[in-house]
Amino acid sequence: MAIDVEAALAAIKFDQAGLVPAIAQQHDSGEVLMMAWMNKDAVAETLRSGRVCYWSRSRSSLWRKGESSGQSQTLVSLLVDCDGDTLLLKVDQQGVACHTGHRSCFYSEAQASGFVEIAPVLADPEELYRR
Amino acid sequence: MAIDVEAALAAIKFDQAGLVPAIAQQHDSGEVLMMAWMNKDAVAETLRSGRVCYWSRSRSSLWRKGESSGQSQTLVSLLVDCDGDTLLLKVDQQGVACHTGHRSCFYSEAQASGFVEIAPVLADPEELYRR
Repeated sequence: MAIDVEAALAAIKFDQAGLVPAIAQQHDSGEVLMMAWMNKDAVAETLRSGRVCYWSRSRSSLWRKGESSGQSQTLVSLLVDCDGDTLLLKVDQQGVACHTGHRSCFYSEAQASGFVEIAPVLADPEELYRR
Repeated sequence: MAIDVEAALAAIKFDQAGLVPAIAQQHDSGEVLMMAWMNKDAVAETLRSGRVCYWSRSRSSLWRKGESSGQSQTLVSLLVDCDGDTLLLKVDQQGVACHTGHRSCFYSEAQASGFVEIAPVLADPEELYRR
């Protein structure tokens, strides 16, 4: 289904830096995978291609998720919140979302002694970026 | 279980404004409910009280979720991402998370014509804030 990208962009409130936070959630399991940022170009490319593309604040460039690691995200649906200033991407995650090799970036839980890792490493981080 | 709040705070990277984005997810269904911001005081109060407290950027004050609407969030677990700069709160949402009366703030989906509401209003917004 072709989405009217300009209409979608017009409904999103980008911040002073031209960015909007985007939460990625595995569409079927409901697992929250990561949170990253998008600018207008990233949203437009994601809607047009069906492959999730973020904006890398550290590299100041488009970040086609999985381009170097192979761990890409296929867009299932894109939602915006009531204020128009946060996106929720329902995706199908190939492999692992996190550069550490965890399925989700949220693998550390606050427990009595502080944050504790509660999820396994599923992929060798060095292998992910050796391609 | 008492959590070492200072140890948890030390592991979180707050941004230049002293804030960190926090995603709230219904702990059992996996539904993503909302995204808001927390400062150190909000994280500390949430961990100590077990009731979710955000920082309201518009009011510049602590925002005890549900204080005026009754739609509070009980904390089930608090996770931090790999970079330490985003939180995921697994919560038990009382009633609806959104001030519009929708269960989740993410009720508008990008479709062919732009964003379309795909979830029902479950509570009258005027009733929510009449108490």
